[in-house]
Amino acid sequence: MKIHFDTDYMEGAHPTVMQRLLDTNLEQTPGYGTDNYCTEAKAKIRKACGNDNLDVHFLVGGTQTNSTVIDALLSHHEGVLAAETAHINVHESGAIESCGHKVLTLPSHAGKLAPKEVEAYIKDFYADETYEHMVAPGMVYISYPTEYGTLYSKEELQTLHAVCKEADIPLYIDGARLGYGLSSDAADFTLEELPTLCDIFYIGGTKVGAMFGECVVAQPGLLKHFFPLIKQHGALMAKGRLLGVQFGTLFTDGLYLKIARHAVEMAMILKQGFIAKGFTPFIDSPTNQQFFTLPNDVMDRLAEKATFEVWGSRGATHTNVRFVTSWAAKQEDVEVLIAAI
Amino acid sequence: MKIHFDTDYMEGAHPTVMQRLLDTNLEQTPGYGTDNYCTEAKAKIRKACGNDNLDVHFLVGGTQTNSTVIDALLSHHEGVLAAETAHINVHESGAIESCGHKVLTLPSHAGKLAPKEVEAYIKDFYADETYEHMVAPGMVYISYPTEYGTLYSKEELQTLHAVCKEADIPLYIDGARLGYGLSSDAADFTLEELPTLCDIFYIGGTKVGAMFGECVVAQPGLLKHFFPLIKQHGALMAKGRLLGVQFGTLFTDGLYLKIARHAVEMAMILKQGFIAKGFTPFIDSPTNQQFFTLPNDVMDRLAEKATFEVWGSRGATHTNVRFVTSWAAKQEDVEVLIAAI
Amino acid sequence: MKIHFDTDYMEGAHPTVMQRLLDTNLEQTPGYGTDNYCTEAKAKIRKACGNDNLDVHFLVGGTQTNSTVIDALLSHHEGVLAAETAHINVHESGAIESCGHKVLTLPSHAGKLAPKEVEAYIKDFYADETYEHMVAPGMVYISYPTEYGTLYSKEELQTLHAVCKEADIPLYIDGARLGYGLSSDAADFTLEELPTLCDIFYIGGTKVGAMFGECVVAQPGLLKHFFPLIKQHGALMAKGRLLGVQFGTLFTDGLYLKIARHAVEMAMILKQGFIAKGFTPFIDSPTNQQFFTLPNDVMDRLAEKATFEVWGSRGATHTNVRFVTSWAAKQEDVEVLIAAI
Amino acid sequence: MKIHFDTDYMEGAHPTVMQRLLDTNLEQTPGYGTDNYCTEAKAKIRKACGNDNLDVHFLVGGTQTNSTVIDALLSHHEGVLAAETAHINVHESGAIESCGHKVLTLPSHAGKLAPKEVEAYIKDFYADETYEHMVAPGMVYISYPTEYGTLYSKEELQTLHAVCKEADIPLYIDGARLGYGLSSDAADFTLEELPTLCDIFYIGGTKVGAMFGECVVAQPGLLKHFFPLIKQHGALMAKGRLLGVQFGTLFTDGLYLKIARHAVEMAMILKQGFIAKGFTPFIDSPTNQQFFTLPNDVMDRLAEKATFEVWGSRGATHTNVRFVTSWAAKQEDVEVLIAAI
Repeated sequence: MKIHFDTDYMEGAHPTVMQRLLDTNLEQTPGYGTDNYCTEAKAKIRKACGNDNLDVHFLVGGTQTNSTVIDALLSHHEGVLAAETAHINVHESGAIESCGHKVLTLPSHAGKLAPKEVEAYIKDFYADETYEHMVAPGMVYISYPTEYGTLYSKEELQTLHAVCKEADIPLYIDGARLGYGLSSDAADFTLEELPTLCDIFYIGGTKVGAMFGECVVAQPGLLKHFFPLIKQHGALMAKGRLLGVQFGTLFTDGLYLKIARHAVEMAMILKQGFIAKGFTPFIDSPTNQQFFTLPNDVMDRLAEKATFEVWGSRGATHTNVRFVTSWAAKQEDVEVLIAAI
Repeated sequence: MKIHFDTDYMEGAHPTVMQRLLDTNLEQTPGYGTDNYCTEAKAKIRKACGNDNLDVHFLVGGTQTNSTVIDALLSHHEGVLAAETAHINVHESGAIESCGHKVLTLPSHAGKLAPKEVEAYIKDFYADETYEHMVAPGMVYISYPTEYGTLYSKEELQTLHAVCKEADIPLYIDGARLGYGLSSDAADFTLEELPTLCDIFYIGGTKVGAMFGECVVAQPGLLKHFFPLIKQHGALMAKGRLLGVQFGTLFTDGLYLKIARHAVEMAMILKQGFIAKGFTPFIDSPTNQQFFTLPNDVMDRLAEKATFEVWGSRGATHTNVRFVTSWAAKQEDVEVLIAAI
Repeated sequence: MKIHFDTDYMEGAHPTVMQRLLDTNLEQTPGYGTDNYCTEAKAKIRKACGNDNLDVHFLVGGTQTNSTVIDALLSHHEGVLAAETAHINVHESGAIESCGHKVLTLPSHAGKLAPKEVEAYIKDFYADETYEHMVAPGMVYISYPTEYGTLYSKEELQTLHAVCKEADIPLYIDGARLGYGLSSDAADFTLEELPTLCDIFYIGGTKVGAMFGECVVAQPGLLKHFFPLIKQHGALMAKGRLLGVQFGTLFTDGLYLKIARHAVEMAMILKQGFIAKGFTPFIDSPTNQQFFTLPNDVMDRLAEKATFEVWGSRGATHTNVRFVTSWAAKQEDVEVLIAAI
Repeated sequence: MKIHFDTDYMEGAHPTVMQRLLDTNLEQTPGYGTDNYCTEAKAKIRKACGNDNLDVHFLVGGTQTNSTVIDALLSHHEGVLAAETAHINVHESGAIESCGHKVLTLPSHAGKLAPKEVEAYIKDFYADETYEHMVAPGMVYISYPTEYGTLYSKEELQTLHAVCKEADIPLYIDGARLGYGLSSDAADFTLEELPTLCDIFYIGGTKVGAMFGECVVAQPGLLKHFFPLIKQHGALMAKGRLLGVQFGTLFTDGLYLKIARHAVEMAMILKQGFIAKGFTPFIDSPTNQQFFTLPNDVMDRLAEKATFEVWGSRGATHTNVRFVTSWAAKQEDVEVLIAAI
């Protein structure tokens, strides 16, 4: 049987989360997140985020979270600034546009936006005499970690956030893999500091220990009439308590970051293993996604033992590939992979 | 502690479903429904529906299923015919319109559309010289059971389906509570016959034994490019196998209808209990939702023991209320309720 | 050759308007309404409306004006309250829904909304515990005159406006035929008073003397970022001055109401003529649209001389028909029609 | 008084067109393009386009034409391929996205798409295993002339059309300035050949002699249910005959191309004048738009005599500017401009 490094959503839920779902399974609670499990989980998340006034909402999946949040934040004449490589620009089947909004793209620097380029875009936009015929930049979207596993430094976020404040538009962070970023040695800020570095973000559950679920955390007052919008976007879970139970468990005793840290450690072993065998990553990622260019014969040999993702298309002699570890990754599997190089 | 008859999504998953989720929890499978659990579950559902060629898709929730299916079936200039009381017209926060489609309403007859009125609407529409300035009827939406717990007879469905065929538009059945309809003594057709009575329907999981999940079943070729549309609507589950595992379990050994039947039996005991105490239902429902008009003092006394839904608003002397039983309902709770009248 | 009473947009522009278009035809002006003709026309319209601070915009046609204004005023979770017979609900091919908004219908009373019913709808909406699952009433749409030629009294508008203010939602008046309402003997308020009776309205040009064009008049600050929205809706005219020239002419020396008055006078002669011959209008309209139920043989005889609109479909013995006069209607034609009865 | 080279929609209608509007002004015709003027104009246009079976529709403006056509051609999961500089991507305030569709951008080569790059994009798209999570290329949009005044050769169009046919997606040409392209010496095909080089295009009226109006010409059967879609997009003119009268006049005795040719000739004089004075165009345009980089002092001196458009923003020492001639341009004005350099 092969070992798997395709992605971080191949397993179900972390056993502790699963156990809580099992323990509470036959309880009866009111729907749509009005239950006590949700209330308690929200309180725990506010605490972990260092601000008891934060606005917290649970949704089911990442694409629907992005499209609901972005739809909530933008006016009709506005679009969302994002890197060309942004998930919303590439891999969401046009979900943002299907809600009527344009994705305004800027160059990707290993998955990241350059604050200077955001600033210049906004300045140039309003300097253009015909700007009212164009889509206004209405918010900035980034991901942390990015789609390439890279991380913004605290200073980069502060600079980008200052650019957004100056333009009076919100900064939104897609945290589908937030745990794998915050628990990396390369992270120079904590979850508690995150709400001071942006206006709104989501804590990814699906990829970090939950069976499913994403948790939106926003500055108070930013999201208006968000409940009906969640419903309209088909993102409102009838049995809302399932999300409360899961996030409540993940935010008890630091489980969320603890299990994320494990994935990152496994990724670092994997990375060092490849480097030791003489391969250089084409992106230097400090998180749970690792990117290497492999000679095709090496890749093909590995593919006999393991599954992983071809990044782009197969090259003539060398091919880019991605290896991903999850909270459930086993060190022995990583070792088998390295041994197989 | 109170007993609960508010709705049928207050518990988690049926224990057998939960056990399967637990058993498979740490397995690794590819995402987005490309796994074997989904493949097997689809085969079982095709078999239960009597046609191996049916097109089967798993989505997460009811509102998103309705909006994705309706968006897939309608052209830009078309709307969906539905009863005024239809869930899509009343309780989905405008999800259908947010995708650009008008809900064209017809009178509700205890939650049901009258095939004659649908036929007349379509005929009158095309008889109007200005019809190209109006929204064309592009499909028909009904629910089975309806939002009032009522059921269409086989003959009514055949007539309505014939009207749709004549107009060359699809008939879509919202089966959020499908099991509670098919397992009622009043149902005069089976799941196996259902695909011959309409063009597309969904088998509700959330309200009938699953933790969450809805299963769309369509005539082959009807849904084009449905996968990217599911993604675009935020209705694509990353860990798609969770849906396969659940529906596979529900469609093994007839579990789905067996547990639905239990809920209906409990509802019949409840109904007879109220009738025996001298109350008449204001809607004669043969399924798991029961509707009574109660004197306010009786209602208030019951409310000390049980929770249930006020249907509309409280009246001066009498009030309409709804009691719902689920697959997990306990006979002793029903008896406590009746004793409390 | 037949005479025509089909509708009020069968001719081109009023000769005075046409002459101004001719006089200015080869002038060069900047585009998109930034020219002096627009500036001057807006000033004249503000003056005619009794408030120099009103926000004035020119668009090309009625449906696009409705969809642009409604899109500008509603949030994602809101819909527009309107009579079942409202143009936006019936005859705009789903333009409102195509922008994502639901039309929330109330009964039509000869084309009019009853303020009490609007008030009750809003009250009931927020009294419903599940209201966040429903589309919120976000504005009220009425037409003046209505699609049935009827008029709201000043008191009715004041009451309706008070209901809207209480609910903190704007009242919007579709004035496609505004001139034919204000110049009727039945109108009990003036254009100068109109801005105090609602929040936003449009002055119809297409049907009242212009070649084309509609003029939106709004309370200052109500419409935000309206220019890019006009562009986005395809409603921004490159040669914007064409609208300025036309409206400037219509609002010089009271031309707009003067020519509208003529149409209403012709309609009154027509109405009295039919009544004198023993027919009773099925709607008592004081404006330029007249509605009669005619025996089919009378209708068929008239149809040899004149064109007019069958209202609905032909009946077995009697049929409803509509006759419309425009600013260009000739009294001799009206007399020929009456003589032919 | 200054002379104007800002753009080609600064005047009203060509005098012959204006005269026809005047001549027919008080005639009564039925609405929405069902009149004889429209019928006759469509016949003339089909003839000019060399195919009596072509599908012809009249709309009012360019942005609304683009958004209506693109909305008609795309399915929900598809986007439109266009150059980064395409009008739909830059200057339509998000009209395409507001209808739910993504603009998929490719590099601009002086405003043009490279057929090879279109081919590669489509091939790569379907080679990507995750393509169902991405927006499919559903059509190709180009402009002729482009936003930079440049022209595709017949061979380039044939190659691009072949790429589209291979991918089974339509090729759409935005012909806002079509006349100025076809009447250029650099054009190596005729209007009669155009329908064989693409699937659908529009003949721009607003910028080429009409007061307003655009004429969509499509292969038969390509546009389905287009009438209600025009209405829904607010692009249906009540007095449709205004468009018929104008296009009928423009396509009588070759007026359309004759007046376009005049503009191009004026542009060539202007271009040669600048070159003779030692300036090199930064884009070599053979049509009515001309692009030069000028030292700021030269530009400022010109600006005292003439208006024109700064292309982008003012540079430190040199600035890009655009000069546009229209069908109404006067040779003496061009000479005054050149003399002023």
